[in-house]
Amino acid sequence: MKLIRYGQPGSINTGVIIDDVKYDTSGFGEDYNEQFFETDGLARLAQYIQDNKSSLVTISEEERLDSPVARPSKILCIGLNYADHAKETGATVPTEPVIFMKSSTSLSGPNDNIIIPRDSLKTDWEVELAVVIGKKASYVEEADAMDYVAGYVLHNDVSERAFQLERGGTWDKGKGCDTFAPLGPFLATKDEIADPDNLRLWLKVNGQTMQDGTTANFIFKLPHIISYVSQFMTLLPGDVISTGTPAGVGMGFNPSIYLKPGDVIELGIDGLGTSSQTCVAWSK
Amino acid sequence: MKLIRYGQPGSINTGVIIDDVKYDTSGFGEDYNEQFFETDGLARLAQYIQDNKSSLVTISEEERLDSPVARPSKILCIGLNYADHAKETGATVPTEPVIFMKSSTSLSGPNDNIIIPRDSLKTDWEVELAVVIGKKASYVEEADAMDYVAGYVLHNDVSERAFQLERGGTWDKGKGCDTFAPLGPFLATKDEIADPDNLRLWLKVNGQTMQDGTTANFIFKLPHIISYVSQFMTLLPGDVISTGTPAGVGMGFNPSIYLKPGDVIELGIDGLGTSSQTCVAWSK
Repeated sequence: MKLIRYGQPGSINTGVIIDDVKYDTSGFGEDYNEQFFETDGLARLAQYIQDNKSSLVTISEEERLDSPVARPSKILCIGLNYADHAKETGATVPTEPVIFMKSSTSLSGPNDNIIIPRDSLKTDWEVELAVVIGKKASYVEEADAMDYVAGYVLHNDVSERAFQLERGGTWDKGKGCDTFAPLGPFLATKDEIADPDNLRLWLKVNGQTMQDGTTANFIFKLPHIISYVSQFMTLLPGDVISTGTPAGVGMGFNPSIYLKPGDVIELGIDGLGTSSQTCVAWSK
Repeated sequence: MKLIRYGQPGSINTGVIIDDVKYDTSGFGEDYNEQFFETDGLARLAQYIQDNKSSLVTISEEERLDSPVARPSKILCIGLNYADHAKETGATVPTEPVIFMKSSTSLSGPNDNIIIPRDSLKTDWEVELAVVIGKKASYVEEADAMDYVAGYVLHNDVSERAFQLERGGTWDKGKGCDTFAPLGPFLATKDEIADPDNLRLWLKVNGQTMQDGTTANFIFKLPHIISYVSQFMTLLPGDVISTGTPAGVGMGFNPSIYLKPGDVIELGIDGLGTSSQTCVAWSK
């Protein structure tokens, strides 16, 4: 299944995509949130769709898409998970996964504007494969880790490099700004993606390809990442783990290239659709 | 007012403390969560208490206390905010606040056990004053910052130093482990604390005083912290900002002292009560 959430902030509805057509599933009566995933919502939703397929109402192509998962308890990210990206940032290749967090207030719709924060000079892009957790996971073994995955989703891990790297402390200042986590267009359930470790992912800025990689180049693969993260904290249903970005981010160019108001980003991953964000200046 | 939440996980009720007696406020019908703070819940709760004071039912002293705020969208922390603590950890005094995040799954009751994670050798304590945000805050001016505070709460920012500092990447691996954020016993509303920048805070391990400081020694005071953090991300009602710890953590001793199963921690802050946690080994 391909799950979507749509509508204006404050009045979000749920839906699914079947054969490239968007259908409303508001009648199912549940948001795609922690409780949904925790209570086998994916199986119940599949049954609902089967029972109601003939009466599902289509959604206008004009509708704004929201994040396909409701606000998770946490958004975790793996840093420097592609050797080529580690190299371009001047970082050494990590010997174990680097974990950082994005605030859940950074979550936004896949095609929403990216707000360049006030006083930002170094807002940057990062196309990433994100995993959505399907059930509570604590000290999970690598062999069992994929049982805890509900599905996959396209993520732009937008990052302010000066806030992240030049303002002291951890990376959190540059990772969790509002609109810095456009997620979607849809959550693809696990069965839709045959091999998550072999997906092409790409990102363009103003039509020019900046990133063109493949998850085959992961330093740490999904089972290891999920098992590893679950040693440090319990993952809840609906939690998001973003798995790192390949080479081609703005800070990797010489001279660096950063986003400015009016820039248009497009990104995509095999089987997970595409998204597009326009950059705008912060205003009161 | 002094707000509490109590009961066993999965069946938490709300209450208040009046003249050192705990009363149930389940009849008010709302948890102390984002929506509560967002919709002027503190004023409505005060009115409810006034209207129902004679019929409020007391809560047994045997009842387990939970975190006095329901799971927030984020728990932010300020690192190295006391010069003596920065010195003992070998860190330089920061020129602007250090921000890091604790996962919301680390939240626990004020007197719950602290689970020492599997393979942990360096679990440490940190008594801290935490602030609870009362209304949505984005790019807040320092002069207005205190208008965004709902109240204050005692926090033990439990930290695994090897996970935090020796496993690569950011601090997140050592800050967000389950049970690493005992919060409470109660949320004191802003009016209860005359001067949050002049509170004694202390922590004992097995009866021995390890930390004994005062928030008068903050490097960055509350208005600056709240304003500063709100430049990087929107703070939501119910969000928690923990403001750093004074000298006396385990890693600061020579040789370092870390927590082991059976150790008992007690901590307190003027006007915010005390809490106590017993350390236990992780088990399946």
